[in-house]
Amino acid sequence: MKIINGGVSTPKGFKAAGIHCGVKAGNEDKKDLALIVSETECAAAGTFTTNKVKAAPVYLSMNNVKNGKAKAIVCNSGNANACAPNGEMHAMTMCTDTAKALGINPEDVLVASTGVIGHEININAISAGIPKAAELLSEDGGKDAALAIMTTDLAQKEICVQLELGGKTVTVGGIAKGSGMIHPNMGTMLSFITTDANVEPETLKQILKECVRISFNRISVDGDTSTNDTCIILANGMAGNPEITAGGEDYQAFSEAVAFITRTLAIKIAKDGEGATKLITCIVRGAESEDKAEKIAKTVIRSPLVKAAMFGADANWGRVLCAMGYSGEEFDPVKVTVAFASETGKIEVCTGGRGLEFDEELALKILQKEEVVIDITMQEGDFEVTAWGCDLTYDYVKINGDYRT
Amino acid sequence: MKIINGGVSTPKGFKAAGIHCGVKAGNEDKKDLALIVSETECAAAGTFTTNKVKAAPVYLSMNNVKNGKAKAIVCNSGNANACAPNGEMHAMTMCTDTAKALGINPEDVLVASTGVIGHEININAISAGIPKAAELLSEDGGKDAALAIMTTDLAQKEICVQLELGGKTVTVGGIAKGSGMIHPNMGTMLSFITTDANVEPETLKQILKECVRISFNRISVDGDTSTNDTCIILANGMAGNPEITAGGEDYQAFSEAVAFITRTLAIKIAKDGEGATKLITCIVRGAESEDKAEKIAKTVIRSPLVKAAMFGADANWGRVLCAMGYSGEEFDPVKVTVAFASETGKIEVCTGGRGLEFDEELALKILQKEEVVIDITMQEGDFEVTAWGCDLTYDYVKINGDYRT
Repeated sequence: MKIINGGVSTPKGFKAAGIHCGVKAGNEDKKDLALIVSETECAAAGTFTTNKVKAAPVYLSMNNVKNGKAKAIVCNSGNANACAPNGEMHAMTMCTDTAKALGINPEDVLVASTGVIGHEININAISAGIPKAAELLSEDGGKDAALAIMTTDLAQKEICVQLELGGKTVTVGGIAKGSGMIHPNMGTMLSFITTDANVEPETLKQILKECVRISFNRISVDGDTSTNDTCIILANGMAGNPEITAGGEDYQAFSEAVAFITRTLAIKIAKDGEGATKLITCIVRGAESEDKAEKIAKTVIRSPLVKAAMFGADANWGRVLCAMGYSGEEFDPVKVTVAFASETGKIEVCTGGRGLEFDEELALKILQKEEVVIDITMQEGDFEVTAWGCDLTYDYVKINGDYRT
Repeated sequence: MKIINGGVSTPKGFKAAGIHCGVKAGNEDKKDLALIVSETECAAAGTFTTNKVKAAPVYLSMNNVKNGKAKAIVCNSGNANACAPNGEMHAMTMCTDTAKALGINPEDVLVASTGVIGHEININAISAGIPKAAELLSEDGGKDAALAIMTTDLAQKEICVQLELGGKTVTVGGIAKGSGMIHPNMGTMLSFITTDANVEPETLKQILKECVRISFNRISVDGDTSTNDTCIILANGMAGNPEITAGGEDYQAFSEAVAFITRTLAIKIAKDGEGATKLITCIVRGAESEDKAEKIAKTVIRSPLVKAAMFGADANWGRVLCAMGYSGEEFDPVKVTVAFASETGKIEVCTGGRGLEFDEELALKILQKEEVVIDITMQEGDFEVTAWGCDLTYDYVKINGDYRT
């Protein structure tokens, strides 16, 4: 498997576009409408927010993806179409307008929205924009699509890989957005993945579910699980490889490629958390189960006190141990070792549940880097889980203190 | 029941003191050692943190309160004595030094600590301070004790009430501290309550447990449950009232007095949350169970996005509905009404799961007050729960970005 430049329009038979249609009013420079389209029918799978309050497009896409088939994704940013007047009608209009512009069945269109909750979406702008976006569809349009799904994101999030399967070159590309309202269980994040691999639909569904579980569901920016989270994968089979099935010989290699895509995009989301200055990776090693390791890693990543300490480059390991303690999991603090690491080096700060004398200056240097690791060893088993988050900063408060205006 | 000026040294037979002993080094003005003592043996009950990582004094006090009897509380601020070298030994020293200074049994002394985690406590300063504090014990010392247990608190937290029980005047006084690392399930908070009421020990335990459940366990500053949370009540019986027993005629009136004390102190803690500019009260009405109402109210109060919106006086009700949705509780969004209220007035912003047209200027004025209410009606039953929190501000980040130095 190799990483190549590209995104969702790189796999064979996929085109994409991203334009400004007017949902983000008064911001002509900001793209707000994305289209991703396959020439041919795709195997399709999706995972969606677990929030009881779901946006209208989420219900629509959950329904349209049920048959395991789709051809296109339409997505706007600037308005989540959640708890909003006429939400169902407008989501349906986005679906039918896209079908019409592309000359395909509405059942083959998946819809996503992201942005502010509770305001009626500017459907006229979107309806006018869809035919324009359809005209601009191209094999170089992936980047524009990546830009068009952004809200408070500072960085576009794209990744693409190629691998050989059954003598054929298979490409998998993905984009994502997400910055605030991010938390495990499909934290506001969207991710769209395309591939020209030939994959049996039920197998695709399993692979996506497992890949989301160990990537997007292991990041947290602020503990808020949004109303709109959606991850969709489309596989059009144009690479011509032998069909990938559960237990088949290419299953593992293809799963790993998708897992790499989702993990890379998840990390990009965590790093671009609202107001964040750094990516925090929490590794929990030596746990007696994966569940326990995951619960503890996520609790540490979520703790506002840990996050604020990381912002301040403060080696305050007591907060790490404290967060572990309220994770709800049983463990023996006396067996716990905590270290901080970054490209500068690694330093153990706590062992046996007690603080170590350590070089504060070195700790500061380690924690001042843009990517820091909280490395926890539990000495009770063989399971290891990694979760990703970001620091809590003044800018998070600023961004969210007045988001609507 | 009437509110009177006073605190833990107001009930008959109680004395208190608060001094600077040196745990908070280089801060001569800051008191850091509190003593609360009863002339006679008290019925005693305590509730303690649910964090798996408990500070040494928590284990000691859990053990000493087991027999339902105690005479004194010693508490230092500036160091939590949690995950710290020689923690058990130093907690025991605090206990025995206090017993010696007061001429009582070590088993009758309860110990609490609050402050930074993971650093060895300056036990020499405390050992030298205890006899000094014992000399200063007085009936006016409650306020000094309230000051001496503070860490990042900006305001001291004291409350006192009197009521008539069986023809006798009974007094209940309480103090508390808590500002950061505050979350339901005994979020770092300490609270000490004294009363001269005559209460059967098992009954006192039940009353405290219930009162903590509906007060301290319904506040959240940051979702971090600390290693040190402790709430203790001492009842010395010197008011001479007939013994209060479960089901007895004074049970209700006394319970209500204790509930008033714990609720008042809990609200004071929420209002004084680290960096907070306002108290946020979330009322959930019309729920089908108390548990559900509580879970939803706590989730709303905890949401960083709701908290940041309240800081910005932004009537962003979508975030309220979103938080309700990820509370883990089932409900029908279409039955939900959300209003914001303060002394300025009340404004409905969402009903039937959809936004209402509302006067943004009025909403802004309502939310700019120091005490705001998020009022949620669910239309599915008769249960109502109130939870308390505070806004998320730049100062929270500042305080916690560099707490140790």
